[in-house]
Amino acid sequence: MNEDTICALSTGVGQAAVAIIRVSGPNAREIAGKSVRLNKKGLQLPSVQSNTLHVGGFFADGELLDNIVVSVFHAPHSFTGDDVVEINCHGSAYVKKRILETLVANGARMARPGEFTQRAFLNGKMDLIQAEAIADLIAATTHASQRLAMNQMRGGFSADIATLRARLLNFISLLELELDFSEEDVNFANRNELKTLVGEIHSTVTRLLRSFALGNVIKSGVPVAIIGETNVGKSTLLNALVNDDRAIVSDIHGTTRDVIEDVINIHDVTFRFFDTAGLRETIDVIEKMGIERTYTTLRVANIVLLVIDTTNPLPLVLWRINKIRELVQPWQHLIIIANKIDIGNARTIGLLRSVMLGAREEIMFLSANNQDSLEMLKNRMCEIVAMEAVNQNETIVANARHRDALQRASDALTRVEAGMEQQVSGEFLTRDIRCCLDALGEITGEITNDEVLGNIFAKFCIGK
Amino acid sequence: MNEDTICALSTGVGQAAVAIIRVSGPNAREIAGKSVRLNKKGLQLPSVQSNTLHVGGFFADGELLDNIVVSVFHAPHSFTGDDVVEINCHGSAYVKKRILETLVANGARMARPGEFTQRAFLNGKMDLIQAEAIADLIAATTHASQRLAMNQMRGGFSADIATLRARLLNFISLLELELDFSEEDVNFANRNELKTLVGEIHSTVTRLLRSFALGNVIKSGVPVAIIGETNVGKSTLLNALVNDDRAIVSDIHGTTRDVIEDVINIHDVTFRFFDTAGLRETIDVIEKMGIERTYTTLRVANIVLLVIDTTNPLPLVLWRINKIRELVQPWQHLIIIANKIDIGNARTIGLLRSVMLGAREEIMFLSANNQDSLEMLKNRMCEIVAMEAVNQNETIVANARHRDALQRASDALTRVEAGMEQQVSGEFLTRDIRCCLDALGEITGEITNDEVLGNIFAKFCIGK
Repeated sequence: MNEDTICALSTGVGQAAVAIIRVSGPNAREIAGKSVRLNKKGLQLPSVQSNTLHVGGFFADGELLDNIVVSVFHAPHSFTGDDVVEINCHGSAYVKKRILETLVANGARMARPGEFTQRAFLNGKMDLIQAEAIADLIAATTHASQRLAMNQMRGGFSADIATLRARLLNFISLLELELDFSEEDVNFANRNELKTLVGEIHSTVTRLLRSFALGNVIKSGVPVAIIGETNVGKSTLLNALVNDDRAIVSDIHGTTRDVIEDVINIHDVTFRFFDTAGLRETIDVIEKMGIERTYTTLRVANIVLLVIDTTNPLPLVLWRINKIRELVQPWQHLIIIANKIDIGNARTIGLLRSVMLGAREEIMFLSANNQDSLEMLKNRMCEIVAMEAVNQNETIVANARHRDALQRASDALTRVEAGMEQQVSGEFLTRDIRCCLDALGEITGEITNDEVLGNIFAKFCIGK
Repeated sequence: MNEDTICALSTGVGQAAVAIIRVSGPNAREIAGKSVRLNKKGLQLPSVQSNTLHVGGFFADGELLDNIVVSVFHAPHSFTGDDVVEINCHGSAYVKKRILETLVANGARMARPGEFTQRAFLNGKMDLIQAEAIADLIAATTHASQRLAMNQMRGGFSADIATLRARLLNFISLLELELDFSEEDVNFANRNELKTLVGEIHSTVTRLLRSFALGNVIKSGVPVAIIGETNVGKSTLLNALVNDDRAIVSDIHGTTRDVIEDVINIHDVTFRFFDTAGLRETIDVIEKMGIERTYTTLRVANIVLLVIDTTNPLPLVLWRINKIRELVQPWQHLIIIANKIDIGNARTIGLLRSVMLGAREEIMFLSANNQDSLEMLKNRMCEIVAMEAVNQNETIVANARHRDALQRASDALTRVEAGMEQQVSGEFLTRDIRCCLDALGEITGEITNDEVLGNIFAKFCIGK
């Protein structure tokens, strides 16, 4: 149980019909009760039952501020595990600010980001994977990312880790039994069985580690680089793709203005587009740096859209295709976008069609202002990603912290396997297995410290 | 009672810890119940009691979408007066969208703006003044605007209107009694008493009408025009004022780019700043139009900040002050801002100080990048407004629709008074009094029609 009582706005900022202000801690009901008068005669907020709803008024400096509905949850039957009062008020900027100020004057303090969830974790309402999944769920914009987060909230990944740890603990207890009887030189643990066990655990850890590539794409979006010469219509293409999917669009400006990032959902798949500086020979130092950055972007993209201008002569177009072809790696998808076909050179277009017939790469002839051809491109990108591969029941790691811990677990297991090969003593094996256990324990938060927790919850939004 | 069930997001858009989706209508529990599974064994959403809270899961296409808390209110004990289910889910863009889609698939329809409040009005939970006050409360950003809205929500204005109507109805019944006995030529209604009564009612209506000036300022902000020559630092001054009060700032671009509007709260008073085109002689047609607009803005401002540049020679400065002085009306406050005193011409500054000593206008010597002088200006503007004049118990009209109806009531009362003066028959008086009663009835919504209601609620936000 925590000693202080915290409060924060839990719903979105800005004007809205309704807002929720959450108060959590041992004095939640008393602190809120100082300013809340319930409509039901004789009823006082501190003495209402758990899981009940009440209509009333919120008073600030003796004056009715707003008509509210309060929800009350008694510890431990609340989200945080502490006493919780949720005040549903009107979503006015002034009302929200004033209620929070009044609660602070009554003895609460403003919650830090993620502090409600942190308390839920500390009160044993959930493990660290589940706490982190809440932040992922809130950030979810697609079915795949929601499903991923929900699966972790439900404890799928937690159960996997618990199973791995239980098997390792069993292994370690056998090894420790050996150590107790070391003078007698008995082997309680059959080395072959042990080897099989470690092998199995290691392969599970490896599978989880590998899933991170997919998990990260689901969470952060499929990286798509849009590259090409200057003035071939790269930005126009990006804008056309973006404008059509206004629903969830955010502009993330890079460290320089050279690479512009846009996150777009297309048919429920998140794509992270990188619009790059146009490629051309230049002596301008700044522009050269921009072009260097384009190549960097090209190296990390899952899908590369090479935009070429069909108003240009064929040799130039082919030269560029060949240049980029050399840079694309086998795991990347290169789509050549033959742009501006509405105004393009008929000869270039015709020859390009023939030349590309036998090519390894896909080519799409389109015009960025033609809706149908844009739709074709979008469908094709979704096909490539084939996000349906995400099975709800399979654990996918999507969190860099989990990946790092799994990597450390994997390294420790490699040392265990090598040690067994070299027939090192049980003592050494035990040390490495403990390493692995600790790494896995960090994922669920069984082993943790304040600094780690602080870092994790600082990334949450306030009010959660 | 309404036949269809509506749903909408009631909390703010964008990512947040929590969001509320509200469902209202006769089938609210059944529709939500199709997708909600409550954690408590054997409990079904349609059969839970009123004013209760339940933890559960929301399912979309058979898959757990989110863990939720549902609040249930039975008709008529809800905000709308219909059955209401409120779903508290995580504030993820995807989750919110999916829940709404699922509710619609289950048989609800998306609510129109203000439709929940409109139902509350139609179900007799509140009158029209109170319904409109909800929208005002949501938009409130200052104590004065919150207090104004809350007073109207609590029914202060409604009671005033009800009293006026009751007195008029009493009056009319006496007149109608006379009409019934008209052949006998009796006067049940003492004409002098009647005159006094109409006079009292008229003066109340007039007081309410006059309060609109203050009410509108409280609701929309005190209009402040920033004017002056080009390059005297008008925009810098505005930016300096705005940057220091980032809390609530919105940029409203005018129909042209010439006048820029900025709403800022300073010490809990809302100011609506108009940054205008610089005044100068010009032959440029567009610029001339901009300057014309500056004069228009000047005419509607409560406070005029005339910015002059102390690096300029005195004669030019004085010429401009005189020019503007002629345009300022008695009810306007002119403050001359002698700007750039950090780099200004010492002679200009010194002479200006002497010249202005005896002047009617206030002058403030400042530099827009000096925090102290900005603070002085802000304090002075707040003093001028003296918003504390707003008494919580006095009714203030802040709604243009109310003002228009009051004006029609006032016009009708003028006709009644004139008619009594000319000793017209009770029949004619009755007709005008009915006019007045109708106008007052429109304010509270006792007399209304679908079109009027449609216009009122269309201005609400969705989800309220």
